[in-house]
Amino acid sequence: MTDALPIGAPVGAIDTPALVVDLDAFERNLTTMAAYAGARGLRLRPHAKTHKSAWIAAQQVAAGAVGVCVQKTSEAEALAAQGVADIYLSNEVVDAGKLARLASLAQRCRLAIAVDSALGIERLAYALRRAGSQAGVYVEVDVGHGRCGALPDAVGRLARQVVDAGLSFAGLQAYHGAAQHLRTPAARATAIAQATAAVHAAQTALARAGLGCPLVTGAGTGTFVHEAASGVWGELQAGSYVFMDRDYADNAPEAGAPRFEHALFVKSQVTSCGQERAVVDAGHKSHAIDSGLPRVWQRAGLEFFNGGDEHGILRGRNGGAPLPGLGETVWLVPGHCDPTVNLHERLVGVRGGLEHGVVERIIAVDARGCVG
Amino acid sequence: MTDALPIGAPVGAIDTPALVVDLDAFERNLTTMAAYAGARGLRLRPHAKTHKSAWIAAQQVAAGAVGVCVQKTSEAEALAAQGVADIYLSNEVVDAGKLARLASLAQRCRLAIAVDSALGIERLAYALRRAGSQAGVYVEVDVGHGRCGALPDAVGRLARQVVDAGLSFAGLQAYHGAAQHLRTPAARATAIAQATAAVHAAQTALARAGLGCPLVTGAGTGTFVHEAASGVWGELQAGSYVFMDRDYADNAPEAGAPRFEHALFVKSQVTSCGQERAVVDAGHKSHAIDSGLPRVWQRAGLEFFNGGDEHGILRGRNGGAPLPGLGETVWLVPGHCDPTVNLHERLVGVRGGLEHGVVERIIAVDARGCVG
Repeated sequence: MTDALPIGAPVGAIDTPALVVDLDAFERNLTTMAAYAGARGLRLRPHAKTHKSAWIAAQQVAAGAVGVCVQKTSEAEALAAQGVADIYLSNEVVDAGKLARLASLAQRCRLAIAVDSALGIERLAYALRRAGSQAGVYVEVDVGHGRCGALPDAVGRLARQVVDAGLSFAGLQAYHGAAQHLRTPAARATAIAQATAAVHAAQTALARAGLGCPLVTGAGTGTFVHEAASGVWGELQAGSYVFMDRDYADNAPEAGAPRFEHALFVKSQVTSCGQERAVVDAGHKSHAIDSGLPRVWQRAGLEFFNGGDEHGILRGRNGGAPLPGLGETVWLVPGHCDPTVNLHERLVGVRGGLEHGVVERIIAVDARGCVG
Repeated sequence: MTDALPIGAPVGAIDTPALVVDLDAFERNLTTMAAYAGARGLRLRPHAKTHKSAWIAAQQVAAGAVGVCVQKTSEAEALAAQGVADIYLSNEVVDAGKLARLASLAQRCRLAIAVDSALGIERLAYALRRAGSQAGVYVEVDVGHGRCGALPDAVGRLARQVVDAGLSFAGLQAYHGAAQHLRTPAARATAIAQATAAVHAAQTALARAGLGCPLVTGAGTGTFVHEAASGVWGELQAGSYVFMDRDYADNAPEAGAPRFEHALFVKSQVTSCGQERAVVDAGHKSHAIDSGLPRVWQRAGLEFFNGGDEHGILRGRNGGAPLPGLGETVWLVPGHCDPTVNLHERLVGVRGGLEHGVVERIIAVDARGCVG
């Protein structure tokens, strides 16, 4: 069982299915992104919704990140409990009970939060006042995703309310999630150009309200080179770069952009062999399929088909590739890393590659299941 | 936090997102299926991959089930550790380490397992011999799903190997997962007629090998009335009937078939309101979307759109329905119950309905994340 897996064990001893981190690739990804942000004078605040792990957050901070983002109150609590000291909840919270918990948390770590409504600001101010604690407040502007965030014109009024409530206005949350997955650099450039225009409009609204804009924070792994080049964003929130999933790898890259390697894999095993198919023990309880099925790693010509919750079906493309035999290991690159990590209690950190490496570290997914 | 939720608390006190079981509907589903199987003299062995909960397994057994099915070694271990006494692992295991664990488990509970390969039988026999334990062995026949299972003609040879290895041949595993989700009764009837023919062929192969067929086990919530009417299946494995998800509810029902109610819901909350949309705090880290998005419960005209891992976007159909306001509760019926349950540590059992009910029980998802 993975529970009992000793440090130093060979990769072959890892029970399947397991979520495995190639630590060498992971560290190169860490360094690449830190160097990219550093060279441009940009703050890096990676999104911990990707890994939900205090240990990985600590590696990111050690490499130069200012802290991490999270999406949920319980995520913030779980990471803070494991020592993460600077957390930005880049999402709206309007529930009074959750806001009381966050105000309490703000006594124990540096905390910021996003808002996009008058009610949210009012309740946040009440909770912080009651707890006697402080938190940075970002006003979220909808820069094209069409999910959360105020329209640019409304940003001045909301930021003014933040300030008038005695809260610390920290700047703008400007994240375009949908742009991350546009396949061509041109399409992504267009989307972020529109997002930039929305930020400019929001900054104009702030000026009309007599307020400056301390910081614009946002961007993800699919588009950060565009936000970085915009002259507007001062902080990058990319998270998936540490692991890189199949979906991000399917994006055609920008010329000259930093490249990240796959560092997160599902180790699976063949449990059944049928006519022109092999069945592995990993289905969508082992890897999320919201962004499509996993890719078979380094076995050219083998394709993964949906086998349901507990199985994956491998077939050769054009009937050509040799199929793996019963008991053979098959490595999969998940379609989407964030919800895949959320399925697992732990990641198995391997040093020296997937073929001949050894287990160096078991990485707890501290905030697994923290959706509230 | 849900962790601290007191028994007797009103539904309104349940933190969001939470997975909530309507215990009244759940119990009616339990009774309906037990009565259906009992009236036909069929054994009921519900699939615990749906709920992964020892408490729910115990309710099923109390209602007449002979035991439960699981799909994974670690699932069997987790449920047995919580007192489940009769477990059938309706799936293939070929890993020597896992087989040793199962052989050990068979010393502590009644266990059966499926096989579909000579290697699997050989390794299972070795593991059981070493442990000095016993397990029932079902030979899986591929009845049309095209995933695991031997071809009918090969079943005689495999069953003969089981017997010659000194193992207890328990019968045939015959499950057509893909047929569960065909939308019309006619399409499902056709698929199960083909499955029945495959079972007949496998039984003929058994007879040629000089063996009888003690039991045919299989069937799921989408098709069990067809297996029950076939005269071939003696045991039903349906699992989803306890919860009923949106996908099963989308099937056009068979005339006169028992009906099951939605008993599993995601409680969510509006955290952001934009132009013609409301955003809730439940995305696909709260509910699985492999079988499509959730349905909004009892708010006619509201539709759920994909908002990513942590958000759901609600819009009115044809722009008509009134949108819920900030902080309002919205109940969702998950697209697929099994992987949705697997995302959560616990289910909140509510008595008296979703509107005015109270929390009666916190149900542990004992085998959550047990994919190995």
